[in-house]
Amino acid sequence: MDAIGRRREADISVSDAGEFGLIARIVARLPQGEDVLVGPGDDAAVVAAPDGRVVVTTDLLVEGRHFRRDWSSAYDVGRKAAAQNLADIVAMGAVPSAVVVGLAAPSDLPLSWVDALADGLRDECAVIGASVAGGDVVRSEALTVAVTALGNLRGREPVTRSRARPGDVVVVAGRLGYAAAGLALLLAGHSDDPLADAHRRPQVPYAAALRLATAGATAMVDVSDGLVADLGHVAARSGVRIELASDDLPLPPELVEAGLAVGIDPLSWVAGGGDDHAFAATLSDEAALRAMALLADLSVPVPFAQVGRVVAGPGDVVFVDNVPPGAAGHEHFAG
Amino acid sequence: MDAIGRRREADISVSDAGEFGLIARIVARLPQGEDVLVGPGDDAAVVAAPDGRVVVTTDLLVEGRHFRRDWSSAYDVGRKAAAQNLADIVAMGAVPSAVVVGLAAPSDLPLSWVDALADGLRDECAVIGASVAGGDVVRSEALTVAVTALGNLRGREPVTRSRARPGDVVVVAGRLGYAAAGLALLLAGHSDDPLADAHRRPQVPYAAALRLATAGATAMVDVSDGLVADLGHVAARSGVRIELASDDLPLPPELVEAGLAVGIDPLSWVAGGGDDHAFAATLSDEAALRAMALLADLSVPVPFAQVGRVVAGPGDVVFVDNVPPGAAGHEHFAG
Repeated sequence: MDAIGRRREADISVSDAGEFGLIARIVARLPQGEDVLVGPGDDAAVVAAPDGRVVVTTDLLVEGRHFRRDWSSAYDVGRKAAAQNLADIVAMGAVPSAVVVGLAAPSDLPLSWVDALADGLRDECAVIGASVAGGDVVRSEALTVAVTALGNLRGREPVTRSRARPGDVVVVAGRLGYAAAGLALLLAGHSDDPLADAHRRPQVPYAAALRLATAGATAMVDVSDGLVADLGHVAARSGVRIELASDDLPLPPELVEAGLAVGIDPLSWVAGGGDDHAFAATLSDEAALRAMALLADLSVPVPFAQVGRVVAGPGDVVFVDNVPPGAAGHEHFAG
Repeated sequence: MDAIGRRREADISVSDAGEFGLIARIVARLPQGEDVLVGPGDDAAVVAAPDGRVVVTTDLLVEGRHFRRDWSSAYDVGRKAAAQNLADIVAMGAVPSAVVVGLAAPSDLPLSWVDALADGLRDECAVIGASVAGGDVVRSEALTVAVTALGNLRGREPVTRSRARPGDVVVVAGRLGYAAAGLALLLAGHSDDPLADAHRRPQVPYAAALRLATAGATAMVDVSDGLVADLGHVAARSGVRIELASDDLPLPPELVEAGLAVGIDPLSWVAGGGDDHAFAATLSDEAALRAMALLADLSVPVPFAQVGRVVAGPGDVVFVDNVPPGAAGHEHFAG
């Protein structure tokens, strides 16, 4: 610690701290909620799973593919890494309880970056009452954050992708196209545009998703690959056709303006852009009315729109008016 | 698929398959056990946690740091990635139920490598009755495997690192120093030596760890960083001193032979080598006798040795005869 003490804080890297010093430093930033029965510092954590089931999902974020250090702060990367996993948990109708985090870091990564990452993970988890209960740090040339989130169904059946029924309406709670617009603005050099923050850090309407589940959603998915792509998973797994109309997709003025600024059809962001982690759900008409009432009661308003209908069909998504450009969503290995 | 169909199987890369094709291909190789209530293909998996708690741990393996593709097959990497996480679960006294896996892969990684990785993960999980219940694949320059394992305590209190008591004996079940010896042989060019396989794929005595828990272990740890380092965590967390004697450490003839071949004191592997995932536990004399009886009853014999004693003291590990070289264990960011 003497060698470290003589240097400026900003110069200290993860390799100076060593694995155990680094872990101790991270753990000190992470309060543990009541769902965490055994927290960091043992071979494994122990988390409450009160109804006898645990919901689990994992996602990797790789520098250069999912974030850029010159565009996003470490805090934002932490928020985003937690958010996209927590969104998957609530899309099942479950309440997040804890996350564990793997960090692969270059040896010259500043310790201050790791501190801010941990703070971002912690704060995003706190939004929905979860804790960062454990993790692993290793050295790698490629800065990579691997998050696994756990959740509790509280006695409810999981809301899967496979039970959408003909006659259901298709609704979306949350924002669509903002992260894609933000990324396009960043790529075009408009890093100060407020929309760029939508790429840096999604605003995930967790509470809205849980209310859609409570209202009786037959299927639900978090929009991570794009509305059309993710509804395509629902249609395929449920064996139904989902009919959308471009006119029903929400197209806020700020997206129209951004589209004009960079010369891109903003509807392509709404239909095909991922990473906002809105929630698309199918519900009976009656359940949709219940959902509207429950969502209207949220303390922070969440955009809510009916965007389509489930009909009998071959497991696909079709536009009944026209096909918007770029609606196919993205595949992480494409091109 | 037509473009792929025209090429030789060995030439097909993950980028040819695309994310969804790759996931479908992996999932087809992964049978789901009865603990998996909702398996791959949804936003998240749902896993049984029958006693209302879930044990969770996560580890990253990075190419070049934790494995080399010219030394280890993809199948071996899969076995090892699963093993080191499953070992953490059983070190808590829990029975593994499921793992989820994040794979960050270069776009030119052969699909056959991914297939074999999935097979290795599946087969190591099957050793202890767990399933690969979900995952994520992304593109990265650095081949990285992130595994998170879940487990079930079956009503038992978790066996942590913090309850070793003065008077307990310290025992080890499993092999010590083999993986370190294997790595030294590989580094020296002896890639055909049978000991090299101990580096490629640990033989984790899961059942032995569970029997140590059943016998009443007061503390337990899987030896991943080295016996002295990992017992150091137990000593520190329990606020006790652990006394070891070099003469009591198991030193099998094959390690002596390997030490002579590469000019390294084999005791340094036994005391300081990680990655074999033996289990070190503390127990009362009476519980240690129960453990010996339970371990003698295993269908596959597991090496078992008493290596030391817990005494009152300041939370450290000391050798009562002499200090073996290289006994400090390794830190992932050191050097």
